[in-house]
Amino acid sequence: MNRLTYLPVFNKLTKSQQNTLENSAFVRKFGKGEFLHNGAQHCTGLFLVLSGQLRAFTISDDGREITMYRLFERDICLFSASCMMNSIQFDITITAEKDTEVLVIPSEVYKSIMEVSAPLANYTNEVMASRFSDVMWLIDQVMWKSFDKRLAGFLLNEANIEGTDTLKLTHETIGNHLGSPREVVTRMLKYFVNEGLISLSRGTIRILNRDGLKKIINQ
Amino acid sequence: MNRLTYLPVFNKLTKSQQNTLENSAFVRKFGKGEFLHNGAQHCTGLFLVLSGQLRAFTISDDGREITMYRLFERDICLFSASCMMNSIQFDITITAEKDTEVLVIPSEVYKSIMEVSAPLANYTNEVMASRFSDVMWLIDQVMWKSFDKRLAGFLLNEANIEGTDTLKLTHETIGNHLGSPREVVTRMLKYFVNEGLISLSRGTIRILNRDGLKKIINQ
Repeated sequence: MNRLTYLPVFNKLTKSQQNTLENSAFVRKFGKGEFLHNGAQHCTGLFLVLSGQLRAFTISDDGREITMYRLFERDICLFSASCMMNSIQFDITITAEKDTEVLVIPSEVYKSIMEVSAPLANYTNEVMASRFSDVMWLIDQVMWKSFDKRLAGFLLNEANIEGTDTLKLTHETIGNHLGSPREVVTRMLKYFVNEGLISLSRGTIRILNRDGLKKIINQ
Repeated sequence: MNRLTYLPVFNKLTKSQQNTLENSAFVRKFGKGEFLHNGAQHCTGLFLVLSGQLRAFTISDDGREITMYRLFERDICLFSASCMMNSIQFDITITAEKDTEVLVIPSEVYKSIMEVSAPLANYTNEVMASRFSDVMWLIDQVMWKSFDKRLAGFLLNEANIEGTDTLKLTHETIGNHLGSPREVVTRMLKYFVNEGLISLSRGTIRILNRDGLKKIINQ
């Protein structure tokens, strides 16, 4: 099976463009926790996620993190190929949250096809608009939402992604997702425990009352 | 003079595409303070700024504002035509900060050309990447920078835009740019006065010590 068909517009490319992609793309595997792309190193290439889960985040000057978005099977990561566009003036870091297999498309190959292919350029536009929407959601969250709402939303979202109400997450990991100090996370989790919404044990958070968490988000 | 040449890729379009744009684009004038686009109304069309200055911002559920970016002469506003792309899932509001003249390109016209024109699609990509960079800068600011740094940076930036160190700005306007309550702005401005960095009089802020403000940003 041709993994490049994960690219929704693959069939709209010319035969020669398809061949160019097929001859240059290659599969890479990353273990859980491994870095796929580091803000400082430009142009690692585009990643088309074949399986697994990626996390895209930014890091402050003094090492604090906040998650921008997650990428799942069939998602594509553009910003690991930021040299592709002059106007991308920011750094993003990508790690594997689970063992992950990606198809790497070299930046210069993708760029050369995009320059002449309206379908590929328009697909790229849609991907960028989708990430833009994620980041606008994030701004809405960090600007206007109180931390209890953000944490409740994060826990419910994690439970949806993992398909379980028992989450293996340290307080520090949650802090790195939400851009908050670990102590702030710990304090709010203890408040949730007192309210009977969750229970805590070593490295694990168990959701006891989904409706209660939803009520916090919407109140 | 054909105002559409403000579109950098105009000359890369086919004669027929150029004609379509010429026949559908029209000039509109907006007075200072007027709304060009309201988050709730989709697809006002694309705005190519001929003269003046626009402000793009988001509004929280309870009416608080934060500026995303500014648009100046020759800039183009994509997000006022958000129906153009399915993946744009957020609302933005645009107002004229000065008397402004724009060339309006109807969304469906722009979209129909972009779908077949690699140059226009790639130009759109670059514009979106540029706005994305603005928004990533904003996240860096609101997440990790203290309010004194943000306010000092804002005042210096305003002075650059206006070409003067005497700024006509209310504390509430500044609050709406930075996403902060007016009282927080007033308190920090008074601190800057005490430090000899600025002086305040009715509706006016005068920058007295640019280097002092720069030092705050970089400390």
